[in-house]
Amino acid sequence: MEELDRMGAAAKAAARVLARAGTRKNTALLIAAEGLEREKDAILSANAQDLAAARDEGMSAPLLDRLALDAGRIFGMARGLRGVAAQEDPVGEVISGGTRPNGLKIEKIRVPLGVVGVIYEARPNVTADAAAVCLKAGDAALLRGGKEALRSNRAIAAVLRAALKAAGLPEDCVQLVADPSRASADAMMRMTGFLDVLIPRGGRGLIRSVAENARVPVIVTGWGNCHVYVDASADPAMAAEIVFNAKASRPSVCNATETLLVHRDIAAKALPMIQAKLDEKHVRLRGCERTRAILGASVEPATETDWETEYLDYILAVKVVDSLDEALAHIARYSSGHSEAIVTNSYESARRFTEEVDSAAVYVNASTRFTDGGEFGLGAEIGISTQKLHARGPMGVRELTTAKFVVTGNGQVR
Amino acid sequence: MEELDRMGAAAKAAARVLARAGTRKNTALLIAAEGLEREKDAILSANAQDLAAARDEGMSAPLLDRLALDAGRIFGMARGLRGVAAQEDPVGEVISGGTRPNGLKIEKIRVPLGVVGVIYEARPNVTADAAAVCLKAGDAALLRGGKEALRSNRAIAAVLRAALKAAGLPEDCVQLVADPSRASADAMMRMTGFLDVLIPRGGRGLIRSVAENARVPVIVTGWGNCHVYVDASADPAMAAEIVFNAKASRPSVCNATETLLVHRDIAAKALPMIQAKLDEKHVRLRGCERTRAILGASVEPATETDWETEYLDYILAVKVVDSLDEALAHIARYSSGHSEAIVTNSYESARRFTEEVDSAAVYVNASTRFTDGGEFGLGAEIGISTQKLHARGPMGVRELTTAKFVVTGNGQVR
Repeated sequence: MEELDRMGAAAKAAARVLARAGTRKNTALLIAAEGLEREKDAILSANAQDLAAARDEGMSAPLLDRLALDAGRIFGMARGLRGVAAQEDPVGEVISGGTRPNGLKIEKIRVPLGVVGVIYEARPNVTADAAAVCLKAGDAALLRGGKEALRSNRAIAAVLRAALKAAGLPEDCVQLVADPSRASADAMMRMTGFLDVLIPRGGRGLIRSVAENARVPVIVTGWGNCHVYVDASADPAMAAEIVFNAKASRPSVCNATETLLVHRDIAAKALPMIQAKLDEKHVRLRGCERTRAILGASVEPATETDWETEYLDYILAVKVVDSLDEALAHIARYSSGHSEAIVTNSYESARRFTEEVDSAAVYVNASTRFTDGGEFGLGAEIGISTQKLHARGPMGVRELTTAKFVVTGNGQVR
Repeated sequence: MEELDRMGAAAKAAARVLARAGTRKNTALLIAAEGLEREKDAILSANAQDLAAARDEGMSAPLLDRLALDAGRIFGMARGLRGVAAQEDPVGEVISGGTRPNGLKIEKIRVPLGVVGVIYEARPNVTADAAAVCLKAGDAALLRGGKEALRSNRAIAAVLRAALKAAGLPEDCVQLVADPSRASADAMMRMTGFLDVLIPRGGRGLIRSVAENARVPVIVTGWGNCHVYVDASADPAMAAEIVFNAKASRPSVCNATETLLVHRDIAAKALPMIQAKLDEKHVRLRGCERTRAILGASVEPATETDWETEYLDYILAVKVVDSLDEALAHIARYSSGHSEAIVTNSYESARRFTEEVDSAAVYVNASTRFTDGGEFGLGAEIGISTQKLHARGPMGVRELTTAKFVVTGNGQVR
């Protein structure tokens, strides 16, 4: 892939300029926001072609919905760019520092990562969102979207590149890979000389493939087998509201809950209330034997597979447990380390749950659906890391930076 | 490698206990320090067997020196353990936090990474040093040392495991891989279900092999093609001291300087002074044409290979440059991103050098040899990261941790 090597070298050169671009980054973001609004019709026309081609190839309705843009979504992208422009610039922050006994002054300074690769699927708004977060962090972005969205992505990237140029920055701060094939994704996974990190955004298959095959550093994002545990001491009404929100407010996203665990002492009271609430959105339950004994045989029996599955659908696995310990063990075994919640009125249960559950976000008496950059106050987000290295949980602009030590002396030797 | 899977599972179980071990970690470290001193003779006897076998196989003198222990080195290891015990515990630190408008309290809490793998070569003291840093961070350590040091490593690991047990912690917080073959290293690189990070410590070959073949997250450490640039405005005497220290105080380590860049306006004055100082330790120079024109034909001519080489020896490549820009371009092209220094009296040159050089540590008027956990005040160090993800520069206890978000509410839904 000579083309990718050329793009990688251009990205590195652009990144060197971008690292010291200061407020010109914000100028570019604001011009790009205006540009998206101004070029709305051109973008929608490109998107209409993508949609027509996708329909011809028999794309499913939910995927077509992800691919589709309308005026509202384009204004949303522009709003996103303005929001990122308004955020604080993390570059140059003195993270820590001091003077050593020998007089050396050591400062740890926040700097951009360099070149960030993003591999994503059919959603064209990722082109604007990911580019904006990278740009603000001072990173050149190499974007490889799905082939279904190529025309839409090209139209959006053209606006972004024109804005960079207008702001006096290299256009190659944002580059879209022209060939959205599997081969180009594979080649990006091997761009060790050029990419400082590669972030896959999409379904579990894509993320697994990148995690297993990449030679460049990767941040694994966004698959979530999330749990809500209803403790013996929980308020059943609160439990029903939280479970309903965690499962049914938006089942297709990674912070939606997939398995409900209920303490046996509250199961007979809480499960019917939870089921009644979930019925409002026709959520189907797959339960253990004890769950079915309480809710009846209309609940399908759960199998081992259910505990492992990220349904991303109006389906919820349900298990009655004997104790907090059993709930903790179940979560330790099956969780993807994304988000887990306990509903409880016990101080000790809350304390143990938050200490012992090893996930990016651990909740007491709140829905798992809050695991999100915006909800956490981080501003725009480039994904939710489910790994432990470098960044964990929602990743904003700051998570796309690194640090360097600047050491100043007056002739010190060792 | 069933044995490794068993060890991985044991490490995960031990890590869950260790994550909440509090001051028992320090108890174990202090008992282990005493144990190393008490078992000195047993360790030295095991080491003598390793040394005899290595001599029989014709191991070179410098490698034999790395392998060899004596009473002083064992006391040094014990001192290291006590130093780590005295450091602040990073686990549980509230990194940031606040209350969102909806009343959710969000705290970002420092927690252990989990299970850390370390692959290293002939130095047996790494067994104690690496285990101590992992233990303090709350991480279970899976250690795979070189086959030459197996008997020494076993003796040291036995002391560490006995100390863990005596402190009421699982012995499997520290495990030594019994089979120090290439196959076990390869297998560790694929322990995706068990290892949260793998750290190679050793020569460039080992580090490259791990970086290229690992499926688990890796932190690349410790190869350094470091530079000193002597600016036009430098004090030549200070330049000579810094270059001498950076090259010749300990050439075998990664923070030793390999290439000297000198501004043409000061070359005629500074180069002879630098050469005279380097002559004290018989450092051989490999120079560009302009260097040889000043210092004479006794200086060997430098080739492209010299700019790329980490000599780890009493050899220094020397190049006269026309400008700071040329120096910056040379460093951008050839540096490994470890440590670079400028010697200058120009405010603007210092400012540009520290801003534009993209390395873990950037120095003004000081030797590159200071890039070290102890010198930076980080306490014990597990290596020097030359990658940008997760940690950059000297890695201490804190760099072996991650974070989780603890979110507490009173029924919030989204």
